[in-house]
Amino acid sequence: MKFSKLISKTSKTVPSDETAINAQLLIKAGYIHKEMAGVYAYLPLGLIVLEHIKQIVREEMNKVGGQELLMSTLQPKDIWLKTDRWDDKKVDNWFKTKLVNGTELGVGLTHEEPIVDALGDFIKSYKDLPVIVYQIQNKFRNELRAKSGLLRGREFLMKDMYSFASNQQEHQEIYNLILKGYYAVYERLGLGDNTYRTYADGGIFTDRFSDEFQTVSEIGEDVIYLDKVKKIAINQEIFKKENLQKLGLNSADLVKVKAVEVGNTFHLESKYTDALDVYYTNKDGQRQSIIMGCYGIGISRLLGVIAEHFSDEKGLNWPVEIAPYKVYLTFIKEEPKLVKIADKLYQDLTLLGIAVIYDDRNVRPADKFADADLLGIPFRVVVNDQTIKDQLYEFKLRSSPHLKYLSQTELIKMIQ
Amino acid sequence: MKFSKLISKTSKTVPSDETAINAQLLIKAGYIHKEMAGVYAYLPLGLIVLEHIKQIVREEMNKVGGQELLMSTLQPKDIWLKTDRWDDKKVDNWFKTKLVNGTELGVGLTHEEPIVDALGDFIKSYKDLPVIVYQIQNKFRNELRAKSGLLRGREFLMKDMYSFASNQQEHQEIYNLILKGYYAVYERLGLGDNTYRTYADGGIFTDRFSDEFQTVSEIGEDVIYLDKVKKIAINQEIFKKENLQKLGLNSADLVKVKAVEVGNTFHLESKYTDALDVYYTNKDGQRQSIIMGCYGIGISRLLGVIAEHFSDEKGLNWPVEIAPYKVYLTFIKEEPKLVKIADKLYQDLTLLGIAVIYDDRNVRPADKFADADLLGIPFRVVVNDQTIKDQLYEFKLRSSPHLKYLSQTELIKMIQ
Repeated sequence: MKFSKLISKTSKTVPSDETAINAQLLIKAGYIHKEMAGVYAYLPLGLIVLEHIKQIVREEMNKVGGQELLMSTLQPKDIWLKTDRWDDKKVDNWFKTKLVNGTELGVGLTHEEPIVDALGDFIKSYKDLPVIVYQIQNKFRNELRAKSGLLRGREFLMKDMYSFASNQQEHQEIYNLILKGYYAVYERLGLGDNTYRTYADGGIFTDRFSDEFQTVSEIGEDVIYLDKVKKIAINQEIFKKENLQKLGLNSADLVKVKAVEVGNTFHLESKYTDALDVYYTNKDGQRQSIIMGCYGIGISRLLGVIAEHFSDEKGLNWPVEIAPYKVYLTFIKEEPKLVKIADKLYQDLTLLGIAVIYDDRNVRPADKFADADLLGIPFRVVVNDQTIKDQLYEFKLRSSPHLKYLSQTELIKMIQ
Repeated sequence: MKFSKLISKTSKTVPSDETAINAQLLIKAGYIHKEMAGVYAYLPLGLIVLEHIKQIVREEMNKVGGQELLMSTLQPKDIWLKTDRWDDKKVDNWFKTKLVNGTELGVGLTHEEPIVDALGDFIKSYKDLPVIVYQIQNKFRNELRAKSGLLRGREFLMKDMYSFASNQQEHQEIYNLILKGYYAVYERLGLGDNTYRTYADGGIFTDRFSDEFQTVSEIGEDVIYLDKVKKIAINQEIFKKENLQKLGLNSADLVKVKAVEVGNTFHLESKYTDALDVYYTNKDGQRQSIIMGCYGIGISRLLGVIAEHFSDEKGLNWPVEIAPYKVYLTFIKEEPKLVKIADKLYQDLTLLGIAVIYDDRNVRPADKFADADLLGIPFRVVVNDQTIKDQLYEFKLRSSPHLKYLSQTELIKMIQ
């Protein structure tokens, strides 16, 4: 992509009501547009990163046996009445709307009920279990305040997965498998070293803990107690002697750190399946409850977390696998000879399938480099009149101050 | 994918309130689940087809210079007041909702206003034009009745593209280029031979016609007058002498046919850009209006159109490029020798990147073949005890009654 063709532009200002650093960074770099508090549009650069995150999550969820489907946003009232989650006094962050004839509808904020209801048509026998399904879909939550940018939106993109098992043992095996999938996701997103499975409150209808995945980060608003050897943590909210004992954790081994939640997994027992009258028949012809789990990863939240976590005073700094472009390429001045060489390199790298943003603008190098840094492109390549005589390109990592001078072969080896 | 792992099952019944043939077929085949009138969930098979259609549309829109972005569903009132499209008396199919504090919000039914508002931050000068952007996103329309299945949903997936040009000539060039992109889309979707550019009413703020793309089909609810030589049609709604003259069409050359709309393109002049105060500065420093076009393709509508248009009494019949699986593979009976050969072929085809649904169930061949037909998989391959002795596989096209007997090499050549 040529820089001059980008519809977004970098900017030094952000809307005055935008207080979240993640959103400020992404707005300045032209990745998102603020529609209102907690609601953002994804401009082309932001959408590419979002799609990269989606694809990683999708691939890892497929690997653990998940089948992707897509439920609706508009929700009929009746299925939510069955689980007592319709009343605004019970669930206080619904957006609701109405059909022309006055029928009330919900605007999907989670999908346990419709998923159970839809799968009820197909899960009848023990032969139909286990089932693991997921979707990547916008959720809508009527948050009273929405000041955390992409970290807590009123409209946000989420991967929500649901498992259905014929007994507790099968459920636990699936649950453990999905945890492995979660580790793989954070690894690929560049968060692997800092992200820990963290025990948290399990909710009212199970005596088990839920699990959060928490990334240790200065940007975090959560506090966790981390056992660095066991690579397990416990959320401050349930940090008490009794729980530590249950979990086999020793308070002397734990350090208190700030962290940001990047995923969670829950044991739902048979609360939703029973309530929606979805059972299976076992080998002996007996009706049995179905054990359910649910597993969330906030995709747009991750966009915000990663943007802010890796940022510095110069701007964004994307992990290679999700960057919108791998390489930022430009010429140091607009001289025909330099431009011609840069044009050729742009063509060569593109043909190799390397995503390049080619800054073809005739502006000062300092402005170009400031934009390259703000955009957070991992590799910067400059066609420089001093070194190109020796057929060497100026190469710099976004995360390092050091310049290197590489031949085209060395360059390709470095970035491919 | 093994058939036994599919979470959906084929069915002989559909919800009693489902009257649309497209939705009936897709429900019976386990592609979609009805949530309520005009609102459907996409089960894994349905989602795969939907993604295939999306990908074709995306590729062709990229080819004509479109940049993909993604606007929000939740809409602030103020931008819609500026164009006088907020009031329910002016736009009668809004879904609306409210923030906790009572602020009214719209649930996105189209996106001219937010797109113009967002791009206003970036389009300032003639150097910033032209711009072509698009998104593939759910739209919500509060239809009084929703009886046409996926052909007119209350929640539906749409590709909406918007162009911004500095003058009429540039606008017309972009418009013509995008029309070419539309032809390419229908060609790849298998609708090319039957789909025609069709002049239609242009709306109230232009004196130009809009264009519809209409697929000649018995399932259509529109009537068009088609010039088969010029490959151009005119919608019955504007079929009058004066318009025929303007368009250079001769009523003697036209045949009246039923057709279904699969896309539309509009000249918006500068109605939205002016109303939202988005102008550009020309070379002479003068403020100028921006000429806009918009271009829609209903993605979920196309799923319904294609499902119904190509169907027969046995079920669905997908064009190869969008089928959820290219090949349906099974063994005629569950004998170890046959199963082993089928397992091996499944593996071989999968390794070649061919999407195969492998029916590993131990059920009667007649039931298997009925499911293969209902699912509409283009190629059926059977490991048959009679012919496998000679290393020949039974091969059948979904659209033909004839059986062929092919070696593995011939088979791969046929389906790849």
